[in-house]
Amino acid sequence: MGRVVAVVGATGAVGQDLCRLLEARSFPCDDRLVAIASARSVAAGAHVRFRGRDIAVRALTEERVFDGVDLALFSAGASRSLEHAPRAVAAGATVVDNSSGWRMNAEVPLVVAEVNPQALDALPRGIVANPNCTTMIAMLPLKALHDRFGLESMVVTSFQAAGGAGQKGIDELEAQIEPLFARRDLLRRDGAEAAALVTHQVHHSTLAFNVTPLIGVETESGYTDEELKLQNESRKILDLPDLAVAPTCVRVPVMVGHAVAVRACFTKRIDLDEAMAALQAFPGLSVEPAPTPLEWAGRDDVAVGRIRPDLVDRNALNFFVVGDNLLKGAALNAVQIGELLVQRGSV
Amino acid sequence: MGRVVAVVGATGAVGQDLCRLLEARSFPCDDRLVAIASARSVAAGAHVRFRGRDIAVRALTEERVFDGVDLALFSAGASRSLEHAPRAVAAGATVVDNSSGWRMNAEVPLVVAEVNPQALDALPRGIVANPNCTTMIAMLPLKALHDRFGLESMVVTSFQAAGGAGQKGIDELEAQIEPLFARRDLLRRDGAEAAALVTHQVHHSTLAFNVTPLIGVETESGYTDEELKLQNESRKILDLPDLAVAPTCVRVPVMVGHAVAVRACFTKRIDLDEAMAALQAFPGLSVEPAPTPLEWAGRDDVAVGRIRPDLVDRNALNFFVVGDNLLKGAALNAVQIGELLVQRGSV
Repeated sequence: MGRVVAVVGATGAVGQDLCRLLEARSFPCDDRLVAIASARSVAAGAHVRFRGRDIAVRALTEERVFDGVDLALFSAGASRSLEHAPRAVAAGATVVDNSSGWRMNAEVPLVVAEVNPQALDALPRGIVANPNCTTMIAMLPLKALHDRFGLESMVVTSFQAAGGAGQKGIDELEAQIEPLFARRDLLRRDGAEAAALVTHQVHHSTLAFNVTPLIGVETESGYTDEELKLQNESRKILDLPDLAVAPTCVRVPVMVGHAVAVRACFTKRIDLDEAMAALQAFPGLSVEPAPTPLEWAGRDDVAVGRIRPDLVDRNALNFFVVGDNLLKGAALNAVQIGELLVQRGSV
Repeated sequence: MGRVVAVVGATGAVGQDLCRLLEARSFPCDDRLVAIASARSVAAGAHVRFRGRDIAVRALTEERVFDGVDLALFSAGASRSLEHAPRAVAAGATVVDNSSGWRMNAEVPLVVAEVNPQALDALPRGIVANPNCTTMIAMLPLKALHDRFGLESMVVTSFQAAGGAGQKGIDELEAQIEPLFARRDLLRRDGAEAAALVTHQVHHSTLAFNVTPLIGVETESGYTDEELKLQNESRKILDLPDLAVAPTCVRVPVMVGHAVAVRACFTKRIDLDEAMAALQAFPGLSVEPAPTPLEWAGRDDVAVGRIRPDLVDRNALNFFVVGDNLLKGAALNAVQIGELLVQRGSV
């Protein structure tokens, strides 16, 4: 009898990755995984596979569904997390939440496993939050460089995959490819007419053969909530409440694999050899000449490349980061947090 | 008998747009356009259509091909321009060159029609250079803002279409779409294996369902020649020799339509209303909420959107610019320069 793990949102894209990673990484838990999803999934008879067994999905609304659970990994959206994570905690579980629901709560640590594991020392709410996928991948090289040079400000421009909006984001892009590719003459002659050949609901414009410079909801500041996450979550994870961030979030027609172009300014002058050594030594991070998001889809590590000192400012460095938004950007980091909680005896 | 115009590289993508725009804009010239291309195109019997006539292409190497030409629009690559533009000038023509060959020559003005037409006042070489397509579209909003607030530095991240590498760049992307889309399961599970299903020569990696953070050739500085163009051409066009530029050039799977995300810092504090008014009043520039490159393919104007004051620095502004890289980014600006030369009596 080991500890009992629950996966909430077990039938979703990240939920399936959570189950697969718990098994692949031999997570120290009982074989009786508690797989939780919507009442609709339960009615449809959904199962998940774990360690050779088929596990019937149970409903999140089921009254005693968290009884006996030690660790609950949530990936079911912010409103469900806000409502149901406290139920799991009340039943005795520690929660690792993949949604944005708890991230900015002062009593909830926001953790990237390689960057700020010490934030797990205090869990006043019994909840740990997993950062958003774009911030997550940027944190690894930024932490490596911050420890050496002292991060002061950054301009971050993202190239975010359709999969960052979940399966429905991928489905919408896929549905646009063939109709637009069949009219590729029009893509060049009258792009607006081409774009209008297909519909879009998930993304703010036609995404196939295009990029969309708007993700999420625009706030009064002119920035989207997605862009403000980059500022607010970076500040919390790096414990730099005054970090200046200029974020631009752009959706690109990639299925899975996020990328960010970063120009970071530091308090100390950059020594390129030292910077390279710090990046190469950082756990979970690979240094490559020019890594691309497609080539990192399905990989656990994050890659940084195009590392080059600023052309003018000796305290600044430019680089390009890629990572799988469903793995390190979501499921993998959540499982890594679970492993850290086990090591610390918190679970 | 009007002035005689030659188009060098008349059979290429930009060359065809040049012929079309000369006709559509009723350029004040003789109906006998001189269409010039490679000896291979001539041998193949290539023709171009102009004002209802079929015009047989003549070879660039033909000895007296520039005799009688008043204005020669070159779009045939840097090495051909460096060799043959002086021949056209010696024969009495003024040259507008679309290649990078003459751009940084101190005796050759580098002109964006709406931004620095006064640079046409002196033509010591008889040659005018057309900027590269990425710099070109960024210049319109930057000039509008610079005149009001005084530009000091900028971070520029590009989203460049396959067509920026010419027809061969589009062909390579098109050839990758179907084989990769047929294996879209693999795009998510093992992106590196998927990327290896197709070949690439023009772009530095598989571009379909991917982005490539390397365009052109890496120099010793770590920056590509494409990125250095953004710095050097911006400085020359805006007459700001000390402008600090942090450039990142990225290729995206779009056929036609470039985009750039810009974070610009100024000497004066930004007043958003004033900034919007300056952008709205600028010729050739449209202000839109969130313009996309596909929707601007085939359009003459450049669009700027996502205009938002910096979250921290009161002297900084963030925005997103899109434009057709083959039109305003190349052929249209060259024809506009021709029109300015006619207005000034230089041709």
